[in-house]
Amino acid sequence: MQDQGSISSRLSQRALDSLAAPVPLRAKLIRALPELYHPTLNPTGAINMGLAHNDLMQKDIMEKLSTCLEFQTSDLEYGDPHGSRVLRGLVADLMNRHFNPVIPLHFRNITVVPGAGAAVWQLVQSLADPGDSVMVLAPYYGNFDLDVCVSTGVKLIPIYPHHSMDGGIDMDLLNSTKIIGTKCKVLLITNPRNPHGCCYSVKDMKHLLTFASKHSLHVIFDEVYGLSTFNPIPGTESSLFEPFTSVLSIANIEQWIAPQLVHVVYGMSKDFCLNGLRLGFIVDQYNADLRSAVTLSSMFGYMSTLNDRLVCNLLKDTTWIDWFVNTNRQRLYKAYELTTKYLEQLGIEYIPSGVGPFIVVKIDRLFKNHGQEISFEIEEAIWETALLNGVYIAQGYVFHCLEPGYFRLTYSLEWDHNNLHMLWGTS
Amino acid sequence: MQDQGSISSRLSQRALDSLAAPVPLRAKLIRALPELYHPTLNPTGAINMGLAHNDLMQKDIMEKLSTCLEFQTSDLEYGDPHGSRVLRGLVADLMNRHFNPVIPLHFRNITVVPGAGAAVWQLVQSLADPGDSVMVLAPYYGNFDLDVCVSTGVKLIPIYPHHSMDGGIDMDLLNSTKIIGTKCKVLLITNPRNPHGCCYSVKDMKHLLTFASKHSLHVIFDEVYGLSTFNPIPGTESSLFEPFTSVLSIANIEQWIAPQLVHVVYGMSKDFCLNGLRLGFIVDQYNADLRSAVTLSSMFGYMSTLNDRLVCNLLKDTTWIDWFVNTNRQRLYKAYELTTKYLEQLGIEYIPSGVGPFIVVKIDRLFKNHGQEISFEIEEAIWETALLNGVYIAQGYVFHCLEPGYFRLTYSLEWDHNNLHMLWGTS
Repeated sequence: MQDQGSISSRLSQRALDSLAAPVPLRAKLIRALPELYHPTLNPTGAINMGLAHNDLMQKDIMEKLSTCLEFQTSDLEYGDPHGSRVLRGLVADLMNRHFNPVIPLHFRNITVVPGAGAAVWQLVQSLADPGDSVMVLAPYYGNFDLDVCVSTGVKLIPIYPHHSMDGGIDMDLLNSTKIIGTKCKVLLITNPRNPHGCCYSVKDMKHLLTFASKHSLHVIFDEVYGLSTFNPIPGTESSLFEPFTSVLSIANIEQWIAPQLVHVVYGMSKDFCLNGLRLGFIVDQYNADLRSAVTLSSMFGYMSTLNDRLVCNLLKDTTWIDWFVNTNRQRLYKAYELTTKYLEQLGIEYIPSGVGPFIVVKIDRLFKNHGQEISFEIEEAIWETALLNGVYIAQGYVFHCLEPGYFRLTYSLEWDHNNLHMLWGTS
Repeated sequence: MQDQGSISSRLSQRALDSLAAPVPLRAKLIRALPELYHPTLNPTGAINMGLAHNDLMQKDIMEKLSTCLEFQTSDLEYGDPHGSRVLRGLVADLMNRHFNPVIPLHFRNITVVPGAGAAVWQLVQSLADPGDSVMVLAPYYGNFDLDVCVSTGVKLIPIYPHHSMDGGIDMDLLNSTKIIGTKCKVLLITNPRNPHGCCYSVKDMKHLLTFASKHSLHVIFDEVYGLSTFNPIPGTESSLFEPFTSVLSIANIEQWIAPQLVHVVYGMSKDFCLNGLRLGFIVDQYNADLRSAVTLSSMFGYMSTLNDRLVCNLLKDTTWIDWFVNTNRQRLYKAYELTTKYLEQLGIEYIPSGVGPFIVVKIDRLFKNHGQEISFEIEEAIWETALLNGVYIAQGYVFHCLEPGYFRLTYSLEWDHNNLHMLWGTS
C-alpha cells in the first residue's frame, strides 16, 4: 500500500494546477459563506451584497414559476444535452425581441449549458489549446479565473486599455497590448461590464473587433446583464450613460471582423433572477464547426428534461416575459436611485451606470481627505470588518482592479434588508 | 475578411480531434434517431430496443415524481454545483442500504454531476493529462469513446483479458497487457458489464485491483446498473449467475490496492429509470484531493436547484425507494424470462445474465448453420434492415466487440411494444 503523500500527487497535472491557482473571488466567497444570513440557520448573519442576485422580482417570478412546473412521461427519457429545439427556439425568440440581432436568431444558433460560466468554459475548450491564452478586458468578473482556466491549460491575461474604470477604450493603449508570445486565441469582453455596469459604445466595440481581427482572435461577448439596463430610463427616452448594444446588432460586422470569430454568451441567471436554475446560452450565428464542437461537449453539462420543460413553459408566455423585463428595469432603476441618493448624502463616491444589479463605490478619497493613502491591505481589512459587522460586499481586488479602494455593492434587495446603513455605520 | 475555410480550422486542436474521432455508438444513434417511434411525430417509427431505457416502472415513478415536484424561493439563489448536502447525504444513504460499503458513505463522499458519463469525464480530467491513456475492459459501453476523450487529450485503450464475452478474467491475458509506453493512468471497469450484463466475481475484482496496483493505476468502477440485478432471483436465494458485488463492499481492500486509487461512478438513469434527469455521482471515500478537484470542476456541470429538490423529495421516502428497487428487480426478471423463453423458441443464442435491462444475442451460429461466416459488414446490414423494418437495436460493433454477430436488445419495454416478433420476422 502506498502512502497518502505519493497518492495525492497522483492527480493529473491539470487538476493540481486548477486547485493551486489563486482565485481571489472564490477565496473570498468561501470566507464569507459561513457568515451569511440565513432565515433559520444563521438569522443574525451578514446581508449578501456581494453576490450578484436580484431579489426585486422574486415574488413575481415565484408566482409565475409555480404555474410552469411540470413533468411528463417523456421527460423520463434522454432529452437533448444542449437543450430541446423548443427551448432553443424560445431563447432565440427572446433574444430576437430584446437584443436586436441584425439577422434573426434561429434555434440552431443556441446551445444551452448549465450557466454562463459553463458557456465561457466550453467556448475556451473549443477555441484554445493547453499553452494558449485568453485576454480579458479588466477589471473583470473574478470567476473568469476559473471559467477560463480550470482543466483547460489555458492562461488568462488581463488587459487594461482604459484610462479609468468607467472610461472608454483608448486605442493607443489597446494597440500597445503585447500579443507576440502569448499564443492568444480569444478576447473576452463582458458588456455590460462587471463589476461597474458601464457599457461599451458601438465605436469602442468596433475598435475591439478590429483589434481582434488584426490578431486573428475569436471574440466572446458575455452579455449576461444585457436586460438589466435602465438606460434609457424606463418610461423616458433619456439616456444618462452609454446604452447597452449587443454585438449581435452591429450591422455589417464583417467590415471589422470575420463574423465566424464572434460569439455571445447569455443566460437567465441575472436578467431573470434565476441563479439557481443554471441556464447559460452559447449564441453563434456564423461558425457551424464551433456549434458542432460545443454540441458535442455539452453532454458533460447535460440539460435536465425537468429544467428544460420549466423554462419552455416560462419563456413561451412572451407577454409575461416582456412585462417582467420592463418591470425589472423599472425596479432596478428605483433601487439605483435610492442607493445613489443615499451614497450622495453620505459623500461616498460611486461609478454612475445604467445597469443593475450592482454599483461600484470608490473610497480612496475618504482616505485622501484624511491625508492617508488606501492600500489593498486596507481594502481587505475594510472588507473583513464589514463582513463581521453584518454586510458581505465584493472588493475591487477580486475583480482584478489595478488600484485599491473599490467595492461592488449589490443593491437589488428589499430596502429594509439593504443594509447600507449597517455598512457605513450611520444607523 | 477571412474565408470560411481558414476560420473553420481555427477551432482548438482538441475540439478538432474530438469532432474527428470515430465514435460508432454515436454515429449509429444519429442514424437511428430520425427513424424512432414517437407517438405524434413518428407513430410508425422504429421501436427503441437500442438505448438502455427501462419502461417497466414508468407509471410508478411518474406517480411518485408528481408528489415530489417543488420549487422554493431559496431555489432562485445559487445552489451547490455538486449537489446540496441534503441530496449528497440521501445518495450516501441509498448506497449504504444497497451497495453494502465496508465503511458507510458520508455526504462528503458524493459529488453530483449531470450523468454517469459526466462523472467518468470529470474523473478522467482529474486523473490523466493530455497524452495519457485510460484502459477499459472491453467490450465496453460505446459512449466511453466520448466520456474519456472529448477535450481531454486522453486516449482510450480497450483491453480484452477474457476468453469469451461472458467469461471471467484470465490472469495470463491480463498480465500480458502492454503497459509500457501507454502512459496509462486509469483502469476503467463497468460492473455489471455493458453490453451483456455479466458481473465480475470478487476473485476477478481482486485480480483487477492487483493489476492496477502493480501499474499504479487509478481504478474507476462504473456501477450504474448495480440495482438492476435479479440475481439472486427476487423472492428466492437462488443465484443463477455471478452476483453483483460493489467494489465499495470489498473488505480489507488495502491488501490489493491503495484505496485512494479506487473510485466509483453511480447514477439514477438506469436503476431508477431517470435518463432525463441527469443524475450522476462520483463516489470516493479515500482521496480528498480528488474530491476537491471534482468539486471544483463540477461547476461546469452545475446542478440545478430544481433538480436537486425533486431528487431530495424522491430519495427521502426510503420505504418507497426500497419498494421501487425490489419491484423493479422483479419486473426485470419477468421480462428477462419472457424474452429468453421467446429467444429459445426461436433458437436464438444469447448470453445469460442476472442483470437488466438488456441482453446480448449471438447470431453467428445461425450463419454457420448455413455454411456462412458472419462479418461486421453483415452485422451492419442486419442492423440497418432491422431499423428500416421497425426495430432499433445496438450492434456489438458499437461496444467494440472483437467478433461480429452480437446485438444488444433492451427488453424492459411493455411486451406489446417489445417487438421481438418484428425483429425476427415471425409475426
